Amino acid sequence: MSDNIRIKAAARDYEVIFINSISDTLRVKNHSKSFFIIDHNLIHILKKEAGNVFHKLSTLSIEATEQNKTLEYCQGIIKDLIKKNIKKDNILVAVGGGIIQDITAFISSILFRGIEWEFYPTTLLAQADSCVGSKTSINMDGIKNLLGTFNPPSAIYIDVGFLKSLPVQEIKSGIGEMLHFYLIEGSELAETMMREYEKLLESPKLLKKYIMASLQIKKNTVEKDEFDRNERNLFNYGHTFGHAIEFVSGYRINHGQAVTMGMDIANHISVKLGYMDKQTFESMHRILIKNLPEFRLKPNQATDFLQALAKDKKNVGNNLGCILARGPGLMKKVQIPFEKDLKLIILSYFESF
Amino acid sequence: MSDNIRIKAAARDYEVIFINSISDTLRVKNHSKSFFIIDHNLIHILKKEAGNVFHKLSTLSIEATEQNKTLEYCQGIIKDLIKKNIKKDNILVAVGGGIIQDITAFISSILFRGIEWEFYPTTLLAQADSCVGSKTSINMDGIKNLLGTFNPPSAIYIDVGFLKSLPVQEIKSGIGEMLHFYLIEGSELAETMMREYEKLLESPKLLKKYIMASLQIKKNTVEKDEFDRNERNLFNYGHTFGHAIEFVSGYRINHGQAVTMGMDIANHISVKLGYMDKQTFESMHRILIKNLPEFRLKPNQATDFLQALAKDKKNVGNNLGCILARGPGLMKKVQIPFEKDLKLIILSYFESF
Repeated sequence: MSDNIRIKAAARDYEVIFINSISDTLRVKNHSKSFFIIDHNLIHILKKEAGNVFHKLSTLSIEATEQNKTLEYCQGIIKDLIKKNIKKDNILVAVGGGIIQDITAFISSILFRGIEWEFYPTTLLAQADSCVGSKTSINMDGIKNLLGTFNPPSAIYIDVGFLKSLPVQEIKSGIGEMLHFYLIEGSELAETMMREYEKLLESPKLLKKYIMASLQIKKNTVEKDEFDRNERNLFNYGHTFGHAIEFVSGYRINHGQAVTMGMDIANHISVKLGYMDKQTFESMHRILIKNLPEFRLKPNQATDFLQALAKDKKNVGNNLGCILARGPGLMKKVQIPFEKDLKLIILSYFESF
Repeated sequence: MSDNIRIKAAARDYEVIFINSISDTLRVKNHSKSFFIIDHNLIHILKKEAGNVFHKLSTLSIEATEQNKTLEYCQGIIKDLIKKNIKKDNILVAVGGGIIQDITAFISSILFRGIEWEFYPTTLLAQADSCVGSKTSINMDGIKNLLGTFNPPSAIYIDVGFLKSLPVQEIKSGIGEMLHFYLIEGSELAETMMREYEKLLESPKLLKKYIMASLQIKKNTVEKDEFDRNERNLFNYGHTFGHAIEFVSGYRINHGQAVTMGMDIANHISVKLGYMDKQTFESMHRILIKNLPEFRLKPNQATDFLQALAKDKKNVGNNLGCILARGPGLMKKVQIPFEKDLKLIILSYFESF
């Protein structure tokens, strides 16, 4: 059985292909029409591993910072590509994590009214989550992901060898995002993965089967609701509260661990509002606990935290829009009046520490 | 029988609706979710005609210049929309010609990963051509239409009453573009329309049936080839040479009349290369002649003219990519070595004057 995953999408169907090593794959492919956009930090790895092949590629090295996810920065890249004489029938190839993906995929949406792109995701978050689902995102005026398109790549090549060079924080971040998929699905992999937690941090190559399972869950949902109008909304589980944690911590806490705590908070609210029983909370908490970030809300951060929640895109009117749960696999989209009662419930989560 | 035309497209099907007057239509529609982007020059007309209704709309007035078709300018508009508290489920409404269309449609492609837009085209070119076909175009670094997307509006409302306020040059421009559709289709309307030419310039409201016929021809082709990979290429008939005329004249010659001369040049080349017989050339020339621009290529412009052709996007390698013809309805896409022979043939067209 092939490990590959095929995804149906509006613009084009596309495939996730698990490869043994990026250098082998680069060696066998024809790159005469390809322009590589590569995370600056990966250049030395690629030079070392792909050597001769690498030097023949047409490459742009870029810095993967959130500050570079802007129209101005994309325009600079486009200028470079035009100088290199790029044509409509050429292909952009992104090598990096979510930021490189966003920049490349967005440029591919608008250059020449759309040109093809391929993706070698190199972070766990990109391999296990963002590479599938078509979303591209650009920041503007300090508003994260205000602009963007839906534009899947024509192919995704996953080399889990990249994971060994990642800081452990990034592995924990990816694990948090995968946990969220398993809990939404009600998959027993949530427990299985957390039982192996320490081993996985040490040998992240072992994550391959978990990456495949995450992508399979994501595939099933985005094929039903690519444009995020219905079922796909459930993927916001843990994210409303997670984003607020990232924000209040000044982005010191990584995304996936913030989401891990966000799910714990959503469950806490679910108990208080009578959706979830205490026992279910405890059994889910035992799964989440190993991946919780070291974050305690200080009393002087409470207002900022609530304010961040109040500004969430998913809110309608004066309600807080979020995903609650009855248990694993039993998520529910709700809009709850964002008033004193709810605020006290949310803040009480942090008192249990 | 309804005058409306329904078009199938990848992102959404949409309809062209012929309306009696924009003010009547604005009066009956609910605009609580609409943000209007309006050609600055139309504000006084709309204020006069739609009065009370107009003042209740949320509007942005913009200058319809080619210089404003940039990412920077779009970003300014998006800032204004965000200040006005626009949300993902709101609708942009463009009122104006092709430039207002391009700016609005492009913003609608990227804001919140896509929001709905509607269009009231007010120029003959926009009513008879650009409103249908999904293309959006943004200039960058002096390269026209380098960026863009395919993003049809959800509805197009055509009020031919706008045509009476247009300068006669713009009517001639629209007629040139319609002629090009009729000749590609082999429709007898090419002759019929040119028989009424003077009357149409005087009472442009009479153009309605010609607008409908043009859009019907465009619909049939873009439904088969929305993304311009095959059949739709034939719409470049007259355009390769037309663009070069616009360029050399410093854009003093309008688009549609430049295309009229461009078709005459394409036919001239077709005769010289043995595709078309002299008689067919003459009968087509008799149709085109009334709408030819007052343009003569001066000897010192020949190099610039040939250079502009050499830079055409449709060229492959050292060939000139253009559309030739055996006669009306018998167009053919070709790539011809752009060498001395062809250059002499092209320049010999201008010697006949």
